[in-house]
Amino acid sequence: MIYLDHAATTQMSERAAEAMKEAATVTFGNPSAGYELAAKARAVVNRAKITIACSLGAKDTEILFTSGATEGNNFCLFSGARRAEHPVILISAAEHPSVRECALELKRRGAYVAEIPLLTDGRIDLDAAERFLKEHRDTTVVSVMAANNETGVIQPIKELGDMIRIYAPDCLFHVDAVQYYGYFPINVREWKADLITASAHKFYGPKGVGFVWHRESVNLPPLLYGGGQEEGLRSGTENVPGIAGMACAVEELEQGARKDSGSLYELRDYLKGLLLELEPGITFHPGASSLTVPGIINFSFPGFSGTLMRNRLDVEGICVSTGSACANRKREPSRVLMAMGVSPEEAECSIRVSLGRENTKEQMEETVRAMARITGKR
Amino acid sequence: MIYLDHAATTQMSERAAEAMKEAATVTFGNPSAGYELAAKARAVVNRAKITIACSLGAKDTEILFTSGATEGNNFCLFSGARRAEHPVILISAAEHPSVRECALELKRRGAYVAEIPLLTDGRIDLDAAERFLKEHRDTTVVSVMAANNETGVIQPIKELGDMIRIYAPDCLFHVDAVQYYGYFPINVREWKADLITASAHKFYGPKGVGFVWHRESVNLPPLLYGGGQEEGLRSGTENVPGIAGMACAVEELEQGARKDSGSLYELRDYLKGLLLELEPGITFHPGASSLTVPGIINFSFPGFSGTLMRNRLDVEGICVSTGSACANRKREPSRVLMAMGVSPEEAECSIRVSLGRENTKEQMEETVRAMARITGKR
Repeated sequence: MIYLDHAATTQMSERAAEAMKEAATVTFGNPSAGYELAAKARAVVNRAKITIACSLGAKDTEILFTSGATEGNNFCLFSGARRAEHPVILISAAEHPSVRECALELKRRGAYVAEIPLLTDGRIDLDAAERFLKEHRDTTVVSVMAANNETGVIQPIKELGDMIRIYAPDCLFHVDAVQYYGYFPINVREWKADLITASAHKFYGPKGVGFVWHRESVNLPPLLYGGGQEEGLRSGTENVPGIAGMACAVEELEQGARKDSGSLYELRDYLKGLLLELEPGITFHPGASSLTVPGIINFSFPGFSGTLMRNRLDVEGICVSTGSACANRKREPSRVLMAMGVSPEEAECSIRVSLGRENTKEQMEETVRAMARITGKR
Repeated sequence: MIYLDHAATTQMSERAAEAMKEAATVTFGNPSAGYELAAKARAVVNRAKITIACSLGAKDTEILFTSGATEGNNFCLFSGARRAEHPVILISAAEHPSVRECALELKRRGAYVAEIPLLTDGRIDLDAAERFLKEHRDTTVVSVMAANNETGVIQPIKELGDMIRIYAPDCLFHVDAVQYYGYFPINVREWKADLITASAHKFYGPKGVGFVWHRESVNLPPLLYGGGQEEGLRSGTENVPGIAGMACAVEELEQGARKDSGSLYELRDYLKGLLLELEPGITFHPGASSLTVPGIINFSFPGFSGTLMRNRLDVEGICVSTGSACANRKREPSRVLMAMGVSPEEAECSIRVSLGRENTKEQMEETVRAMARITGKR
């Protein structure tokens, strides 16, 4: 099998899986209980907070554990919106459904919701954002992702952060970093963000766990009420095994896995070269000049359905995706590509290949050979 | 170590831990993706639904996976309350904070919230419930737990269900079965409930995962918005490893682990006998006649602080709890015991011992010998 869908999920690292199993069977205590076994479980949670905080240049008290990015994004949007009686929410046209659907639900509940359009290179229109913020200095929450899940486009987060601080200093700035954190280190102070979301299963950690970084000075009400864990911010017995596995995966990122980003860019360019050799009429979304994370390549074979290509590659043991995994059940062409000006017809032909650290040049060659057979090019 | 805090959490079974690891490293695909690896992950999720549904006499389409009972209870209370513009919520005085705090938050948002008082045997006052329901036939949600986490008292769910169907047939009836499901089979039709919550880590499954059974005819809005997983009812990439581990733990319950309930009652009575031999002045909460789950024994040593006892037992390698783990950070005497008429002084002396399937008679003897040393009785 050649797995080329790392933006959908990753195979858990052996070390992280072992850390998870140990916490489930050895340090299995409930961290809220009052004996040594519980203190050991509490220590696993606390150490994980320190590991993750260090990786972000943040304080451990600013890390909140969640059941994944969807809960994290829901928390940031819904709890963030509760700061105003009539919330004003600004998202981008590139947001993942776990942000977008929250904004739409807030709109149904009476919030004013606006969307920053995308330029043809997939980045947000900063001028449009500036116009909006100048007009709506009472904006409650701005939520823009660091890197897009379908195209890999890296958004100008720092520039947007600066802009928010100028025009709407009381606004909460939330960054969904799910597709970014596995490739690049984040320094929370640089981004001027207030809230950052990540999900462990996107960087070789376990499914069902993620974290939110929340700036110390930001006091949000919880999304989940109950026993008062996480200083009352997120009730529920801590998922100690998941947290242990996630911290282990973060350690692996810090200990070198992120350095692979350089070689992933090489691998990506190698694949792009092979694809253009096979079919010069191929279109990349966005075009070559744009800045994307190294792992995500989105392209259309002219006149060849993306779904058909995915299905035929599957038969050959190669896993790729059409757009985001989450949107698979919807039969519409990608909203994100269309927001970049890609035609519905071309969007229907799009394929997302997302690379991971175990992929090789030989796998790229094999994949393009398979595409040649499928499209009848060779 | 003698672990006697199974109501707080359980050590994950080796088989369940293996199932979890396999799903994390082998069938690791994102169930929403469109290739064979993803279909295998989807199959793990679907099989888990069937396993759990069968154990409840329910349909697999009625099972919803959550990140645990806190999320499950929040979903049932908050999404349930959204059925009415001015919700009327009835809970019992015995509810876990993950129900109680939701009700209190709903009250802050304008809901009318009432509490069914407890009788001295720890059970809800059914007459009071009847009076309330007669007066409030528009009640939106009734939430009463199947068995209490501190005392083990089993509530008259079937009787309450019948009553709700008579007086407030449109009301949603939610049962938090977290402390019940590990001991006894549940048949959802018998209870006349609409929503039932459970948590895997209370029955030797993984932390960070649970399920909600929701009656087919009940259409609730989601708590978490996003990619539309779980038929739109709960977005977020499914925690396939956690779900696989939970299903494995449910299989173990069905394949015999529940039959241990009989021998746990024996073990409980053996412990109670030893305790009364040591100190005839000991008080059990509730008194011996009440119906409790086999694993939970709550008692007070006259004049001996529960916290001190727990700490001294910890030094001897014995894990017990004072009240619920979740409430440990609050220094107040147990609200549940006081609602049963126990004085604050006596509640301060209370200890909860909760037994599991690996406990033995020898461990009971050793525990009581340790208590004898600690209290200076021998």
